[in-house]
Amino acid sequence: MKNMIITISREFGSGGRTIGKQIANTLGIPCYDEEIINKIAHESGLDTNYIKETSEVSEHNWLLNAFSNHLYHGNNVQDYVWLIQCDIITKVANEGSCVIVGRCADYVLKDRSNVLKVFIHADIDFRAKRIVEVYGETDEKPLKRVKEKDKKRAAYYRYYTENDFGEIHNYDIALNSGNIGIDKCVDIIVDLYKHLNG
Amino acid sequence: MKNMIITISREFGSGGRTIGKQIANTLGIPCYDEEIINKIAHESGLDTNYIKETSEVSEHNWLLNAFSNHLYHGNNVQDYVWLIQCDIITKVANEGSCVIVGRCADYVLKDRSNVLKVFIHADIDFRAKRIVEVYGETDEKPLKRVKEKDKKRAAYYRYYTENDFGEIHNYDIALNSGNIGIDKCVDIIVDLYKHLNG
Repeated sequence: MKNMIITISREFGSGGRTIGKQIANTLGIPCYDEEIINKIAHESGLDTNYIKETSEVSEHNWLLNAFSNHLYHGNNVQDYVWLIQCDIITKVANEGSCVIVGRCADYVLKDRSNVLKVFIHADIDFRAKRIVEVYGETDEKPLKRVKEKDKKRAAYYRYYTENDFGEIHNYDIALNSGNIGIDKCVDIIVDLYKHLNG
Repeated sequence: MKNMIITISREFGSGGRTIGKQIANTLGIPCYDEEIINKIAHESGLDTNYIKETSEVSEHNWLLNAFSNHLYHGNNVQDYVWLIQCDIITKVANEGSCVIVGRCADYVLKDRSNVLKVFIHADIDFRAKRIVEVYGETDEKPLKRVKEKDKKRAAYYRYYTENDFGEIHNYDIALNSGNIGIDKCVDIIVDLYKHLNG
């Protein structure tokens, strides 16, 4: 088999992370999710929690940071993290087949031919229910929390890629995990990976 | 098996029609494509070519028609066709499992639970090449023709559904037929239909 990278972009609460891990387990290839954040922390010296937050701040916050928090050639901390993130994603993609969850990996690797770009989405009610049931979220207003996360992820993606998050043409396959089911999403993507990489 | 409808929304030149026909053949269920147009013609008394054109006119043309071509309770001819089309799509969906290609069937049947909503897209270069090779299009500028068709389909969909054509959340599964291949798209959708309908 050739090297092939699966990027999983996903809406908060859609099960995209679970799907990514299950695909990687089934195929016996690495899954990079939290690991990317750990690598960024290692390379930047920044705290992992801080790095997680940088992928969800609003454009307003970026603007404030841009004037207050210069670290790297005139760029702010988020831009510094972004550059390290791009570098790490490129490195892990060069190492061999893997699954990369989130972190705009679809965009970072957009000019490669050996990338299967996946988008996982689901209705907002399904996702609000799931973050309580599966993630153990204790927020009293899960629907509001999902909406806020959606806005922040979209703003982050838009800011760094100049594309819309969830724009259908950016993905080889997009699945509604709420209607199709998490396990079936895994089966479809594993099967497609094998077909394209056969 | 229960009744289940597969709606195929597709970009011009993406092979969505071919995919729809192959799915229907494999599953042994009817495929409604041109047949919807024939049924509209039969019910409305309008010419089939005219009906085809009504799904691709621009909003500008609708505006002109709105003032010049009243037939039906103050609506124009396109609105008249739209109402008949909605009625026919609902009727064929009530008759049993089938594939319906285009005609905004995903929107018309959006409140039903037994619908698998599919979107087929592909890069514009793939589509421009395909319309010459497969459809036998003789236009000297296939890229321009694809772009025009995209604009017209999007305008039609937007006008009648008040949604964007290709909005990822409107579909259970979206596939890039250029990257995945027509035959594999068929396999994936047939398999998913069987899974959901098993």
